[in-house]
Amino acid sequence: MTPGIGERAQTAQEGLFELWGEVVDLGSAMAVLQWDQETQMPTKGQESRGKQLATLAGIHHAKMTDPALADALDAAAEEAGDDPDAAAQVREARRSVDRASKVPAALAKALAEAESNGLASWQEARAASDFSLFRDSLVELVALQKERAGHLAGDGSPYDALLDIHEPGTTEAQLAPVFAQLKEGLGALLDRVRGSGSAPSEAPVQGDFPEQSQLAFSREIVDAMGYDIDAGRIDLATHPFCTGFSNRDVRITWRFQKDDLRPALFGLMHEAGHALYEQGLADADQRTPLGTAVGLGMHESQSRLWENLVGRSREFWEWALPVFHRHFPDKAGVGVDDIWPALHLARPGFIRVEADEATYDLHVLLRFEVERKLFSGGVEVDELPDLWDATSEELLGVRPPDPAKGVLQDIHWAMGAYGYFPTYTLGNLVASQLWEAAAGELDLSAQVAAGEFAPLREWLRDKVHRHGSRFSTSELVERATGKPLSPGPFLARVTSVTEAAYGVA
Amino acid sequence: MTPGIGERAQTAQEGLFELWGEVVDLGSAMAVLQWDQETQMPTKGQESRGKQLATLAGIHHAKMTDPALADALDAAAEEAGDDPDAAAQVREARRSVDRASKVPAALAKALAEAESNGLASWQEARAASDFSLFRDSLVELVALQKERAGHLAGDGSPYDALLDIHEPGTTEAQLAPVFAQLKEGLGALLDRVRGSGSAPSEAPVQGDFPEQSQLAFSREIVDAMGYDIDAGRIDLATHPFCTGFSNRDVRITWRFQKDDLRPALFGLMHEAGHALYEQGLADADQRTPLGTAVGLGMHESQSRLWENLVGRSREFWEWALPVFHRHFPDKAGVGVDDIWPALHLARPGFIRVEADEATYDLHVLLRFEVERKLFSGGVEVDELPDLWDATSEELLGVRPPDPAKGVLQDIHWAMGAYGYFPTYTLGNLVASQLWEAAAGELDLSAQVAAGEFAPLREWLRDKVHRHGSRFSTSELVERATGKPLSPGPFLARVTSVTEAAYGVA
Repeated sequence: MTPGIGERAQTAQEGLFELWGEVVDLGSAMAVLQWDQETQMPTKGQESRGKQLATLAGIHHAKMTDPALADALDAAAEEAGDDPDAAAQVREARRSVDRASKVPAALAKALAEAESNGLASWQEARAASDFSLFRDSLVELVALQKERAGHLAGDGSPYDALLDIHEPGTTEAQLAPVFAQLKEGLGALLDRVRGSGSAPSEAPVQGDFPEQSQLAFSREIVDAMGYDIDAGRIDLATHPFCTGFSNRDVRITWRFQKDDLRPALFGLMHEAGHALYEQGLADADQRTPLGTAVGLGMHESQSRLWENLVGRSREFWEWALPVFHRHFPDKAGVGVDDIWPALHLARPGFIRVEADEATYDLHVLLRFEVERKLFSGGVEVDELPDLWDATSEELLGVRPPDPAKGVLQDIHWAMGAYGYFPTYTLGNLVASQLWEAAAGELDLSAQVAAGEFAPLREWLRDKVHRHGSRFSTSELVERATGKPLSPGPFLARVTSVTEAAYGVA
Repeated sequence: MTPGIGERAQTAQEGLFELWGEVVDLGSAMAVLQWDQETQMPTKGQESRGKQLATLAGIHHAKMTDPALADALDAAAEEAGDDPDAAAQVREARRSVDRASKVPAALAKALAEAESNGLASWQEARAASDFSLFRDSLVELVALQKERAGHLAGDGSPYDALLDIHEPGTTEAQLAPVFAQLKEGLGALLDRVRGSGSAPSEAPVQGDFPEQSQLAFSREIVDAMGYDIDAGRIDLATHPFCTGFSNRDVRITWRFQKDDLRPALFGLMHEAGHALYEQGLADADQRTPLGTAVGLGMHESQSRLWENLVGRSREFWEWALPVFHRHFPDKAGVGVDDIWPALHLARPGFIRVEADEATYDLHVLLRFEVERKLFSGGVEVDELPDLWDATSEELLGVRPPDPAKGVLQDIHWAMGAYGYFPTYTLGNLVASQLWEAAAGELDLSAQVAAGEFAPLREWLRDKVHRHGSRFSTSELVERATGKPLSPGPFLARVTSVTEAAYGVA
């Protein structure tokens, strides 16, 4: 469009933002359709939804690889010069454009359709605990992902290319020693715990918790955290997740267990932690390349920080106890000293999302080992169930009794997320390191014990949320904590709380 | 794509369907976003949703006007030859393509954004009953619609161009005598009713009806109609509507009034009537040009048929009475002879959606008169409130006390639907004429009195639903009833039931 009389010429950055805004809108529209599919869509809508998502994915891909966008990027890069913010906008846009350009349009569309259908057959397979019902979908999904990884990796490692999608810069070689350190540290902790011959009682957080009371209780907690419900909503779903269509529409889901308070409460605190990150992205960055979270590792750090560092702390329960008693009058006799140990179990189990802090990262390591072998070790899809069970036995000492409690438990592969799991562990490490730094600057213990979560939330907003993708995860960690990322703070804290809960300190 | 060895070449129709499928998917994605906006979206999500919809509308428009689609159409037209079905596919696609090609892309996008924002300011204005809060949005919406109508009409009438969007072939000149006949017939009926000096009691359908009981009662009714809930869902919304994203995902909304059964029950039967049409479209036509309902007039005939011809009939209540008693035990003493007259009032009021059958079409005529003047009579937006009130007084004999009960009552103008209202009256006429024909072929009275709705539903599916857009509304009416469309059956039936209810026969 030629500017008319009285209009000023568009800057190169404005030209880039105009095109980029459409790419963002398409991504948001796909996210709405996926949220709907998970929470609202009737069963028979599956087939047409798969086609709709595939079409949007195809258009998204076409927009990303449009020569007009490449030209706009070149112009914006030239205009940016030494301005770090303008240059970062170009850098982040280019990262996505380069990635999309390496994947042929037909493959992008095939992936979207396979993922939408994979989700349906995985749901069926998990419900029936029958791997064979998911097998064909998984073969197709893995084949397509290998093709994608091949395009992305060029001469490099395909698995590294997949890891990089979810947390830019992450590599297998970098993760391996981190996991080795965790395996050793957590393994030793589990040995000590086993040696204690006893375990904290779970009775204080078990009993009869009506659905509506669980929701009301958890709602009060996430309100206090600062989750803005006028810019979001909470729905029941089989799988808790958080999704955002802008910083003003960030939705979370929950599930509950009638006889155990923990899945609903910590699930919702976890998702609300993700949501605070999305709601905390800067208004001015919306629909621009910098207007998104930096990576899934950093994202997970926000959810784990609220779930584990806040929600499982003694101080939190000092504040939350009267709220808990109000919603669950049967538990009037239960105190903080009863609840706290029940939140720090160290008991190897089958299910990742039910795992305690002391075993969670071993579940992630299991998946890291399986995915490495699948993408760089020549393992075939048909070998996955046995490989899963054997690795579970090696790392956790338990063998899943059926596929629903083993290889079929996670939604990730069905929805096309490969190389995603390690971000969970990165999130745990980042959370502990951020917490340590925040504790050095804020009066965290007293604030949490008083239910004052605003100082912590604003600290996170200032150090992490508002920056969007301006800085990498490692840059953000160094800026916020003064140190490079390490497993130290995480291992030290988990060891200390677990030993205290088991009385083996 | 060049066909490989062993693949057969794509036919021209397959080439057309491939491109058309993407257009359909985009339309469905927009419908999902709009449904979400009306039923799920948090308030702060409005601004970003407007941008998302505008982007999708822009892409939809670009796909419609893509030269590749025009080429595919030409090829498919040549291939179709004398095959009526293949030719109809081309005809319907071309109708949409021609319409889109006449509207510049920037205007299509501006319309989508103005409509999404118009909706928000209309909601605010209606809640405050303050026209000034909607005024600026409406000025913009009307200006954009005039621009659009100008592009569509060429040398023809702009208002005709808008009418044609919603029910192809409809013109102002064709509607004027129909409305004149209705005005005369209904006016005379209202005079006779007024002369009776009495009115049926509404007490049988008024009282205390809990929300959940109303939903459960209405759910049982729409289940019996054959609405497939596994291919749809029901949500509460401020405005009852039906929307479909394929024939396997057709959603309806409802609202209720605690002290009156009618809005929820007849609202849901109405929307379920629409939904049966959408669910009855042929599987084989999905994502093709013929795979949509023919027009909004025919669509409305399906909703009004179930709402008024079935739901307000004595036979229906013979079957429904025990269901009604089961859900509302307080009403155990109420019989069919009590309920039936309360469903056939003839009482001029302010609100279209609350209007009885004897006055409904006068509300539509009011809007037809106002829209004609707005688009071809030089009336300005600022004159609308007074024009509305004066026309209401002339046609219905009542003057709205405030804008919420007058010019602000309908969502249509806010969402960019101009020339839409007359389809409501077309629907009423078609419904009565179809009903008369069905009654000649089926044992309708006995079937409805036994709650056997399948014969009627299958008759409608056979005569209307399964054909999609193969035939025009007038062709379908003539094929199904053997006669051209006329107001006769509607006027005769409304007159007879109203006179019976008022005892002035």
